[in-house]
Amino acid sequence: MKTMIHLHQTHHTVADFNGIFKTLTEVLKGDGLHLFPELYLTGYPLQDLVLQRPFIDRYLEHQEEISEWARKQTGSWRGLLGGLSYQFKDHERVPQKIQNVIYEIVPGKGLINLYAKRLLPNYDIFDEQKYFSAGRSNAFYQFKEETFGLQICEDMWASSFHEIDPCELMMKEVKEKNLKLKAVINLSASPFEATKKTKRLERARNISLLFGCPFIYLNRVGGEDEILFDGSSFVMNGPEVIAELPSFKSASQEISIDAVQSPYSKKPEFHPENTWEGLFSPRINMDVRPAVLKSWSDEECLEVLKALQFGLQEYAQKSGFKKFLVALSGGMDSALVLAITKLSLKPGQSVEAIYMPSIHSASLSTELSEEMCRRLGIKLAYLPIKFLHSTVKNAFIQTFSDPFEGLIDENVQSRLRGTLLYTRSNQTGAMVINTSNKSELAVGYSTQYGDSVGALSMLGDLYKTEVYQIANFVNKHFNSPIPEGIITRGPSAELRGNQLDQDSLPPYSRLDTILEGILSYRLGKTQLLELGLPENEIKKTLELYSKSEYKRAQFCPILKVKAKSFGFGYRMPISKSHIYQLES
Amino acid sequence: MKTMIHLHQTHHTVADFNGIFKTLTEVLKGDGLHLFPELYLTGYPLQDLVLQRPFIDRYLEHQEEISEWARKQTGSWRGLLGGLSYQFKDHERVPQKIQNVIYEIVPGKGLINLYAKRLLPNYDIFDEQKYFSAGRSNAFYQFKEETFGLQICEDMWASSFHEIDPCELMMKEVKEKNLKLKAVINLSASPFEATKKTKRLERARNISLLFGCPFIYLNRVGGEDEILFDGSSFVMNGPEVIAELPSFKSASQEISIDAVQSPYSKKPEFHPENTWEGLFSPRINMDVRPAVLKSWSDEECLEVLKALQFGLQEYAQKSGFKKFLVALSGGMDSALVLAITKLSLKPGQSVEAIYMPSIHSASLSTELSEEMCRRLGIKLAYLPIKFLHSTVKNAFIQTFSDPFEGLIDENVQSRLRGTLLYTRSNQTGAMVINTSNKSELAVGYSTQYGDSVGALSMLGDLYKTEVYQIANFVNKHFNSPIPEGIITRGPSAELRGNQLDQDSLPPYSRLDTILEGILSYRLGKTQLLELGLPENEIKKTLELYSKSEYKRAQFCPILKVKAKSFGFGYRMPISKSHIYQLES
Repeated sequence: MKTMIHLHQTHHTVADFNGIFKTLTEVLKGDGLHLFPELYLTGYPLQDLVLQRPFIDRYLEHQEEISEWARKQTGSWRGLLGGLSYQFKDHERVPQKIQNVIYEIVPGKGLINLYAKRLLPNYDIFDEQKYFSAGRSNAFYQFKEETFGLQICEDMWASSFHEIDPCELMMKEVKEKNLKLKAVINLSASPFEATKKTKRLERARNISLLFGCPFIYLNRVGGEDEILFDGSSFVMNGPEVIAELPSFKSASQEISIDAVQSPYSKKPEFHPENTWEGLFSPRINMDVRPAVLKSWSDEECLEVLKALQFGLQEYAQKSGFKKFLVALSGGMDSALVLAITKLSLKPGQSVEAIYMPSIHSASLSTELSEEMCRRLGIKLAYLPIKFLHSTVKNAFIQTFSDPFEGLIDENVQSRLRGTLLYTRSNQTGAMVINTSNKSELAVGYSTQYGDSVGALSMLGDLYKTEVYQIANFVNKHFNSPIPEGIITRGPSAELRGNQLDQDSLPPYSRLDTILEGILSYRLGKTQLLELGLPENEIKKTLELYSKSEYKRAQFCPILKVKAKSFGFGYRMPISKSHIYQLES
Repeated sequence: MKTMIHLHQTHHTVADFNGIFKTLTEVLKGDGLHLFPELYLTGYPLQDLVLQRPFIDRYLEHQEEISEWARKQTGSWRGLLGGLSYQFKDHERVPQKIQNVIYEIVPGKGLINLYAKRLLPNYDIFDEQKYFSAGRSNAFYQFKEETFGLQICEDMWASSFHEIDPCELMMKEVKEKNLKLKAVINLSASPFEATKKTKRLERARNISLLFGCPFIYLNRVGGEDEILFDGSSFVMNGPEVIAELPSFKSASQEISIDAVQSPYSKKPEFHPENTWEGLFSPRINMDVRPAVLKSWSDEECLEVLKALQFGLQEYAQKSGFKKFLVALSGGMDSALVLAITKLSLKPGQSVEAIYMPSIHSASLSTELSEEMCRRLGIKLAYLPIKFLHSTVKNAFIQTFSDPFEGLIDENVQSRLRGTLLYTRSNQTGAMVINTSNKSELAVGYSTQYGDSVGALSMLGDLYKTEVYQIANFVNKHFNSPIPEGIITRGPSAELRGNQLDQDSLPPYSRLDTILEGILSYRLGKTQLLELGLPENEIKKTLELYSKSEYKRAQFCPILKVKAKSFGFGYRMPISKSHIYQLES
């Protein structure tokens, strides 16, 4: 028997209860089973919002409005959607137990709580055990004489750090009760990562083969500060993807499913990629240089590009920005930020570029910035800092006897630019996009309150070598917005004469490999040496990394496109003893 | 029989393994039982450090060094100390299970794992469930025929959100096995809060009476970025404190304990103050204005002052600063920061004050700043921003057609000051102390990258009304370092002519009450109205609060002296839908 399933990969701002109600009541009709993502009723992640009285009160009201609407409906449709379940201690609405659940919505009846999420992710950016209590049982859902297994997001991932494996527990009950599943349904709110799609599909294939039925994966779409949900929902039937929704876009699709032909009873292979273990095992391929870049295909580059554009637009729209502001330097990072911003503009939006040369800016930087803006059709504002710079310098020389040179003289240029940039932002109401990359952030190669300013960092999760890769991809597929000269010149902060990044840092190809080892695989000197990396470069990198924690602590949100990023999921004491020097 | 107990309230930097080894091997001798705090072997909190290979490797080596040392010792002393217990999945040292445990150290034997913490706090700043697995059983420790019940920190606090109550579970086993406890020992790493000492003592009294034996509470000392551990260890015997160690200071003390005279078998009264519930129940006393200030006694003011001084020194020493830098404005906040810094200076340290007047600075501000520095014997550097300000203004007028006025003109002054302040900091290597208060932070009444800069915020957990309370306390007890005129003049940002804070904000006495309601008790408009606060002020405050999340997201670490503070324990989406406007 054919069962019609409607997949709704929806997109709402967190706590946009009116919008959620509207979508829900518009699409629920007809005859099939409608699926919505994890925590569809609220959005995700909510963090402390789940504890605030105005949120709780309004959420419960919202839930009641939906129930009431459903009770007045007739028809044979059903819906499954993610929501919160609150238990209170007393009349004060002190939450005693909060669960992340699946509700069924039934015409004539309302909302029925079916299932509470069993695996609450609590690593990296995930804090679910801070707010939620785990469910303790499987759930099987009946729709028109068909039985569906229910899961929420993390439930599909086994990991040695979790005490249970929900797939295994569900399989056990399936066997004991001799159930025949029509499909396993997983409602998700799963963040984007550059290479995660492949991992999800692999895992889904295993689960579909294990249960001998289709696996329906429905993921939310949304950008929540640094965290991006890509949607990319799909239905896996045995080894085969039979339906696929777009990435970073709200979409609905109707599908009809049949059980896979040849059920497969082997336990799924264990893939550590998206699990606790995945955050540890070094998978750096040293045969490829730069090692960290080994795996991005053109398709993955495109997904990263889409993620950055989507993340920018989400932040801007939710914060009410229609204008963007980028400080161009004539270098690679700011050029890529400007190009991506321009490519992602929507009707009614605009971007402005500002070029703020100092006495150390090369004429090539001016020419390349002009050329870049010409290609993109963006007006370039000049705001030289030479006079301001010398004014500050003179004031210091007159007031203090200490020398004014070296890093002092370099940082002041960067901070004056930060001040001018934000003054311009105040004038036009434009959102300042930060232009730092992950390599700089990791070694503290930036000036606090200077080039590190911004509302949002677009490239802060991309190493410098990856910035180049995306820049080349953009030039190849989007009419070369970036002048070749910007890509080929040596990176420089231009804060003193003839300065090159490589004078202070290891070559980026190796620096990025070392950094990936430290950050993603938690390696120290010993393990990095074993990988064949040069000792002096390892030491230099570890020293710069461990001394710059304070800068990262005050950094803006960074669009997250990797498993391990700086930001909310990176939790490191600032004033710790320098453990990376313990080994030397 | 008398049992000698040695309490060691020690103080080490996180991961200072050499220092920890040295202290331990120096004090372990003689005949008694030596107690050290929770996670004594590493320091606390560790966050992601517990997962990093160099940390894991060095920690295991450290543990082995201690074991080896102990195996070579003789004598009848014993030690109980907090440490980590790792279980790995494989040779890659991927942690499978990490526990927060109590080790016994035994001459001739080494380290023996006795007990794993049962209640892992995971609210507010605590992330223990992210890293640790909970223990599942009670532990009773035998020393010279005496039996001791063992606990780690949170184990002593019952809460309806936790599924178990370790005191109750321990009592159950005591009854079943008919044990006679000599004492209950709790090794802690419990952060300071202004009024927490009273709560700890109350709870300890209950536990001592419940078990009919002394309750030994041993807490660590240390300042870890924003989190301050105060020590303040004690021994409670029935209703009575029989030993007490100092706050914010390393100390050792020997005590002899006897069981309480009249054991008390009632279940301890439930006090929600330090528990999950404590983060909710509104205890705002509206009869007192400002309501949030109702409870600080002179003793509590002194503890807060000590906390701020300690926190400053901890951050400075761990980061290698010997000089401090404060921007004086002639207002209350910067004056208090300067006074507290001066009062906390240690030999070899110094503090510098900078006054950066703009065209809007009143001559009274200059006079008061000078008077303040005269009293404290601090040289005051003048660095007027008038010329820089007009230079920037002219550049903008020449370059852009948009007007340069209002907030634009105000913010630029603040940002130029931030630039100058950090330029000076770069010159001298001084640590910039931020001067914002909690009221400003909560409503976003500051300029990003302007007056909001700093390595560490000293007053960011004190409302403006509390800043005044501490200022008066400091003046009363420490020879009036702050000129009376600074305390009595109306607060102003002085960024335009005749500007007063109260022109843009509700009066601080009510603003602070509303903020305390929103932040600590998670209230919304409805509940604040019920408390009798004016609707227009509630609305204004909620609007300013919910629009300024982005500023707090990039703020420096704030010394935490309250149960609910901005910083690591405050987790709120930035670009959320404005839930505080849902009600209006």
